[in-house]
Amino acid sequence: MCSVITKVTANRRCLAVTLGGLRRYTEGLNASAAGDRRLCAGTIARGVLREGGRTYSSGTQLNDLLLFRQLFESESSTYTYLLADANTKDAILIDPVLETIDRDLKLIGELGLQLRVAVNTHCHADHITSTGLMKTRLPGLKSAISKFSGAMADILLSEGDRITFGKHYLTVRETPGHTDGCMTLVTQDQCMAFTGDALLIRGCGRTDFQQGCPKRLYTSVHHKIFTLPDHCLIYPAHDYLGQTVSTVGEERMLNPRLTKSLEEFVTIMENLNLPKPSKIEISVPANLVCGVHHF
Amino acid sequence: MCSVITKVTANRRCLAVTLGGLRRYTEGLNASAAGDRRLCAGTIARGVLREGGRTYSSGTQLNDLLLFRQLFESESSTYTYLLADANTKDAILIDPVLETIDRDLKLIGELGLQLRVAVNTHCHADHITSTGLMKTRLPGLKSAISKFSGAMADILLSEGDRITFGKHYLTVRETPGHTDGCMTLVTQDQCMAFTGDALLIRGCGRTDFQQGCPKRLYTSVHHKIFTLPDHCLIYPAHDYLGQTVSTVGEERMLNPRLTKSLEEFVTIMENLNLPKPSKIEISVPANLVCGVHHF
Repeated sequence: MCSVITKVTANRRCLAVTLGGLRRYTEGLNASAAGDRRLCAGTIARGVLREGGRTYSSGTQLNDLLLFRQLFESESSTYTYLLADANTKDAILIDPVLETIDRDLKLIGELGLQLRVAVNTHCHADHITSTGLMKTRLPGLKSAISKFSGAMADILLSEGDRITFGKHYLTVRETPGHTDGCMTLVTQDQCMAFTGDALLIRGCGRTDFQQGCPKRLYTSVHHKIFTLPDHCLIYPAHDYLGQTVSTVGEERMLNPRLTKSLEEFVTIMENLNLPKPSKIEISVPANLVCGVHHF
Repeated sequence: MCSVITKVTANRRCLAVTLGGLRRYTEGLNASAAGDRRLCAGTIARGVLREGGRTYSSGTQLNDLLLFRQLFESESSTYTYLLADANTKDAILIDPVLETIDRDLKLIGELGLQLRVAVNTHCHADHITSTGLMKTRLPGLKSAISKFSGAMADILLSEGDRITFGKHYLTVRETPGHTDGCMTLVTQDQCMAFTGDALLIRGCGRTDFQQGCPKRLYTSVHHKIFTLPDHCLIYPAHDYLGQTVSTVGEERMLNPRLTKSLEEFVTIMENLNLPKPSKIEISVPANLVCGVHHF
């Protein structure tokens, strides 16, 4: 654990990564004249700045745009997500993979970003995280993972914690069931959710290894993800069919597993008969220490 | 050719796909009270509707949101793009691949969309398009391609033509060089460009087969793509490194080929020494007739 965690209140904790040059998030910030946006309730704005990249701001009159990139690692079909404050350049990386560390670091450098936190949504069984190696190449970078994952990291997260980057933050929702330490990370306006392996597009993570429990997963998804707005975009840790995004509304209507009753879901999950992930024997031990022995 | 093309003026031609239930695009449309957005020049809004999907509207006080999905076909590393008017449900599909036709049709059905046009950015050499087969499964669907491609389709496009879906449209910019019939399709607010093989992320299409010409490609990219706003998002037909999007500003600054002089670019392109695409002998003849003999 390091000193960058600030827990504001028991109910509304704030993980503020107060590294040099970071401005803290201010809720309800008035937009400047140059960047003023007035938005209706229920809509969000996604803007594009000269700085490049797909950017984003919430419907709360923020003029601070979010740079967003979705990246894919083909061997394990893993999505890595880069998010940054387009103004301050503070960035975070979600679920980076060892095989694509050079690509990811190159992009971060090209965009002039300062990577503050590399966070894993859970202790992966199908690939090795690059967070440990990345820390050796980006001094000051902090690793983060759930405190229930059993893994070591600089920052151990739990329900309600915030991962802050510039004026933006993601809030932790604990969504165990695939593993004990699975988290879903949600933007402050609840328009994007990074669901890890808890909820996939028209699917969900397996529950037949590590601490898998179909009942817990079902409850997690229904209580922590399906309670987000219908329009909230779902960005999973994996997709095997070339799909890139879904929404809460779509998955609540169309997910072939999670639209079933709890009993039916458990039966489905207990009869998948999938082969063991080929890399599980090396991935899990490695990911317990951020992929390398430099956590 | 079919009767859905309306050429408004010589300089500002409009390809209006006037199929049943389509409203025509109205520039400068005033937003309704319920959907009002006031946006600064130079920014765009991306909104999310209950209907699901990543959505999008321009900075011209439109309240008509665009549903957008990026889809990937892993064998040829091809991106297919689904765009729809979230209100009217009229949709278009860019560069669909034969191998993923069932996935694409399933998604279109799940989202309740009416697919009006399936357009290819060019006559592909590395995969077979699904437009022909899709027409047999979606009666009323029109295929589209450049009139300089040499291929058959319901709609033959040229510079300035518009592909309209609901209140949205894409404008054709001819960007030959990879092939004679390469097009870049640009949203009405110039915030998204579907560049086909003319411009890839940190790369570009080959110029060593079909009608490839490095000088034409260099001119196309510099005159037709790099003249778009820096913030314009680049969505290519392929990526081989797991990257999903770039921007005009990024590629103008960082593209390792197209930041060079014309002479240097030609030298680079003439010395790539790449193997011939494995499927070229079957793909090109098939794509000249929309992938099957039902154009």
